Amino acid sequence: MSTNNRKKNFKLKQSWYSKNNNQKLGKQTGGGRSGKKPYANGYAPKPVKKPPVKISFLGGLNEIGKNITLIECNNDIVIVDCGMAFPDGDMLGVDLVIPDFSYIEQNVDKVRGIVLTHGHEDHIGGLPFLLSKINVPLYGTPLTLGLVENKLREHSLINKVKLNTVKSGSSVKLGCMSIKFIHVNHSIPDSVAFAIKTPGGTIVHTGDFKIDCTPISGDTIDLSSFAKVGDEGVLALLAESTNANRAGYTPTEHMVSQSLDELFRKAEKYRIIIATFASNVNRVQQIINCAAKYGRKVAFSGRSMVNYMDVARKLGYLDLPNNILIDIDMLGKYPPEQVVLVTTGSQGEPMSALSRMAYSDHRKVMVGEGDFIIISANPIPGNEKTVGNVVDELLKRGCKVIYESMYDVHVSGHACQEELKLMHRLVRPKYFIPVHGEQKHLRKHAELAEFLGMERKNIFIADIGNTVEICDDYMKQVDSVPAGKVFVDGLGVGDVGSIVLRDRKHLGQDGLIIIVASLDVYDGHVISGPDIVSRGFVYVRESEGLLDEVRKLALSILEECAEDNVHEWGIIKNRLREEIAKLISQKTRRTPMILPILQEV
Amino acid sequence: MSTNNRKKNFKLKQSWYSKNNNQKLGKQTGGGRSGKKPYANGYAPKPVKKPPVKISFLGGLNEIGKNITLIECNNDIVIVDCGMAFPDGDMLGVDLVIPDFSYIEQNVDKVRGIVLTHGHEDHIGGLPFLLSKINVPLYGTPLTLGLVENKLREHSLINKVKLNTVKSGSSVKLGCMSIKFIHVNHSIPDSVAFAIKTPGGTIVHTGDFKIDCTPISGDTIDLSSFAKVGDEGVLALLAESTNANRAGYTPTEHMVSQSLDELFRKAEKYRIIIATFASNVNRVQQIINCAAKYGRKVAFSGRSMVNYMDVARKLGYLDLPNNILIDIDMLGKYPPEQVVLVTTGSQGEPMSALSRMAYSDHRKVMVGEGDFIIISANPIPGNEKTVGNVVDELLKRGCKVIYESMYDVHVSGHACQEELKLMHRLVRPKYFIPVHGEQKHLRKHAELAEFLGMERKNIFIADIGNTVEICDDYMKQVDSVPAGKVFVDGLGVGDVGSIVLRDRKHLGQDGLIIIVASLDVYDGHVISGPDIVSRGFVYVRESEGLLDEVRKLALSILEECAEDNVHEWGIIKNRLREEIAKLISQKTRRTPMILPILQEV
Repeated sequence: MSTNNRKKNFKLKQSWYSKNNNQKLGKQTGGGRSGKKPYANGYAPKPVKKPPVKISFLGGLNEIGKNITLIECNNDIVIVDCGMAFPDGDMLGVDLVIPDFSYIEQNVDKVRGIVLTHGHEDHIGGLPFLLSKINVPLYGTPLTLGLVENKLREHSLINKVKLNTVKSGSSVKLGCMSIKFIHVNHSIPDSVAFAIKTPGGTIVHTGDFKIDCTPISGDTIDLSSFAKVGDEGVLALLAESTNANRAGYTPTEHMVSQSLDELFRKAEKYRIIIATFASNVNRVQQIINCAAKYGRKVAFSGRSMVNYMDVARKLGYLDLPNNILIDIDMLGKYPPEQVVLVTTGSQGEPMSALSRMAYSDHRKVMVGEGDFIIISANPIPGNEKTVGNVVDELLKRGCKVIYESMYDVHVSGHACQEELKLMHRLVRPKYFIPVHGEQKHLRKHAELAEFLGMERKNIFIADIGNTVEICDDYMKQVDSVPAGKVFVDGLGVGDVGSIVLRDRKHLGQDGLIIIVASLDVYDGHVISGPDIVSRGFVYVRESEGLLDEVRKLALSILEECAEDNVHEWGIIKNRLREEIAKLISQKTRRTPMILPILQEV
Repeated sequence: MSTNNRKKNFKLKQSWYSKNNNQKLGKQTGGGRSGKKPYANGYAPKPVKKPPVKISFLGGLNEIGKNITLIECNNDIVIVDCGMAFPDGDMLGVDLVIPDFSYIEQNVDKVRGIVLTHGHEDHIGGLPFLLSKINVPLYGTPLTLGLVENKLREHSLINKVKLNTVKSGSSVKLGCMSIKFIHVNHSIPDSVAFAIKTPGGTIVHTGDFKIDCTPISGDTIDLSSFAKVGDEGVLALLAESTNANRAGYTPTEHMVSQSLDELFRKAEKYRIIIATFASNVNRVQQIINCAAKYGRKVAFSGRSMVNYMDVARKLGYLDLPNNILIDIDMLGKYPPEQVVLVTTGSQGEPMSALSRMAYSDHRKVMVGEGDFIIISANPIPGNEKTVGNVVDELLKRGCKVIYESMYDVHVSGHACQEELKLMHRLVRPKYFIPVHGEQKHLRKHAELAEFLGMERKNIFIADIGNTVEICDDYMKQVDSVPAGKVFVDGLGVGDVGSIVLRDRKHLGQDGLIIIVASLDVYDGHVISGPDIVSRGFVYVRESEGLLDEVRKLALSILEECAEDNVHEWGIIKNRLREEIAKLISQKTRRTPMILPILQEV
């Protein structure tokens, strides 16, 4: 392990876990290796040593989303998930964020396949972008692949990629590895964890999971398989950390049924509108069950809601009483108290169906005093304000609104501390790497493992770009792999980077002033202009005086340059930029982008 | 009351409270007035009828911040508070938001003074902007005026404005009104509510308050004065609604002491850094008390922390043991376990001291494994993500971090439901208008009043710009006043409006493409250019092909126009914009701002 690499990798983000770990492991490793040295020249008896397993993280650590992990043993790589992330507020204009795939592209001949834990965007959303570059077979459960299929069709990749359906409980062999699909509970059906048996040992990756002893559909998480894998011996556990900060247990999805039932009774004279995650098929199932019980028809609103329900229905994940579904266009034909509208927009997304209703911008649904609206989801961190605004708008229109924790209309899909502890106890790994979460989640999960008796040196808090090598007798960080955030903006993948974002931020915060002038090709004197154009800076009408001053200053700088025989445009432009910036700052204390454009005539 | 005005005012935001209210009150009012008609021609015995009180809201409703209310009776206006608000995420580049003061400017001859409830920015932050336009005397308690003084000095207004110190418990006479200052508990010392005795009846405005039976400094809220005012009869109550959605009681500030004490013990080997609101003098007092107990020195970090503490100390609101304060530059002279650093940045503000520490950008403080950091504040809605990011960065550096509700290191300064109920019961008003809050808070507070037995028609949920007329026998909405958000950006007040913001948003999201060309003044043919300049759009180096296509298209459009004798620049520019936008959208699915600039040579 090169010190340089380690330094580059950790920079100032070094954690005590990772640092202590490296120090201790560094010694250990050195010891281990030098301990083997006597046999290094080929005179040794054939070693029965197992090959190490290398795990590389391209996403999902120190961030929420774009989960993707590479498991490498001998000459084989298996990719676990390939997700996307939503842009942060400072990634202006970016549609979505995907992992850096260069390491996969460089090693494409080793990649045996991609195994998928479940069908959420943060686990499958990156697939079209990877599969447009390389062709690898996919392995997933029926619903997951149903959702992937839709996605690949949209990107015209469906005929290129081989999709292999795997039922939970069974295994697939990929190169030297055998991957067992283990059923787990989560907020989308057909979710699985993986027990990846490699020649170097077994790696368990939980994917996203919770323990629900009374799930709405399907079985409880397959505890017995986890126990069995644990009995056989697990080298390393990679477990999700989303709720590692929350004590206790995540309640069963069934709890929502009771709250919904109560609210349906309360709302008997109202039209009911429920916003939830489109992918939460079980939640929608419960809404449908309630609707059936109270004699209401159900309509879906929002493109992703319609799409998800379509796939879920086709694959038999949605149990629909006869004739309960109606088209959203038919809403008007029924009395309000006989319908339920299930919609997207539970996160206050500006273009979503619920937001459009709130701001009277929905083409088909007008909301008002006759509406009883339930937001069956919690705001994802960062969305609190937009969700709050949507609630306020709905209230202003006279709607009844159930939001936040007013009723138990939402439960998480992720394991809380007690469930995580159970997972650790079932799997009993030698090494542990917390995954899926920000630093605060990873760290808490690491503390939890330590609390369970694990030695600190056997726990590693990794970052994206890290590669960890694991053997029976050590876990150590090795050379890093390229990793980062690749921005997707429209059709462009990766063509928006830090410079473009910096400019967008500058333009967005302060606007711009353009100075255009045509100069005489021979003597540099101004032939036309300078003209001043501004956008996003001030009301032009009220600032004519200021812009006129700018024009005069620009003209005098240009003429001065011509007089002084300064013809180097770089110098002229710099002078324009600097002096105009100074003037603007004095007069307004603002710093618009200043863009001099010169033309020769 | 004109229907037009009502419509304009409510638009689609009409609430059932306000609507019902208007309908019912409309009738009632008519009845009341026509009932008096027989005496209308001067033959009547001198009426003992009281004049109505008019209340106008210029801010603080359907928003958090910029609280300002006008109380008008006969020919006198008293202004309660004059706050500012922080910009929302979509107000790009805006520094702060202040109320629209035009109604005050138009009626300046009636304004008798501004009374201030307390020294928070959302109650005093708008003062410099109002006082630079008009001159009115200010009335406030010592700490409030101390903070105002600093503010006015910064804006060079200190010699212009008359500041009148009023002790809580006493009254001031302003025109026909007498205003009693009633002590309340809040998260800044010296906070008051007002009982405004007008010839039309008494209006109680609570300001921000909570009921703390064991405050850190000063007395418990003056319940007896509220009771006395209630006994004498209150026409209308205006009460704050910030925590109207929270059941129960806000805990006493004293609770924080115990948690702090526990954490100081836990952190005995660490340097302690505590982030809190600079204005929360009592919180800082508790930190100082703890520091004294555990033998630590205290330093302040962050401009506003230093400023607030300076004022608080000078006015005697901070009780400082001898020699406990040290300058931040002296931190290094003491062992880490013998200092406490009290800092700003509890909201994750990017330029604040704590953020700079987290991102290793603080000139004087480097944080790491030896630091125990306590965030003694809750994230204000909208700040959750930035606070979370700061916590993650601190954790990555190895700091111990206490955040969110891990310990009881923060209590709110606002009344919860049980406290609000008590206020209603003490004051027993005839009419009620919930103030200070978003729609969800105002509405909940209205429901609370109804739950207490108030008739719905005596409750009014107002919006900014509303004026309400109140008499013994009616409360009705009358003509509205100008109100809105005035943006302050640098030195500019109000010169950034919706068009500028729209452009900033467009530029920030999609960047821009500029097309510059010099045209022959006679025949319109291109003499120089067209040149294509882009910012915030794509990496120019990787998109030369695309930009070249744009250039060719622009050239062909310009030449076509010249051939077709189209010399109207508006038409030429429009054609450039449209066709280039189409090309860009086809190739990239993006919509940058397209800015054609033509020059005549």
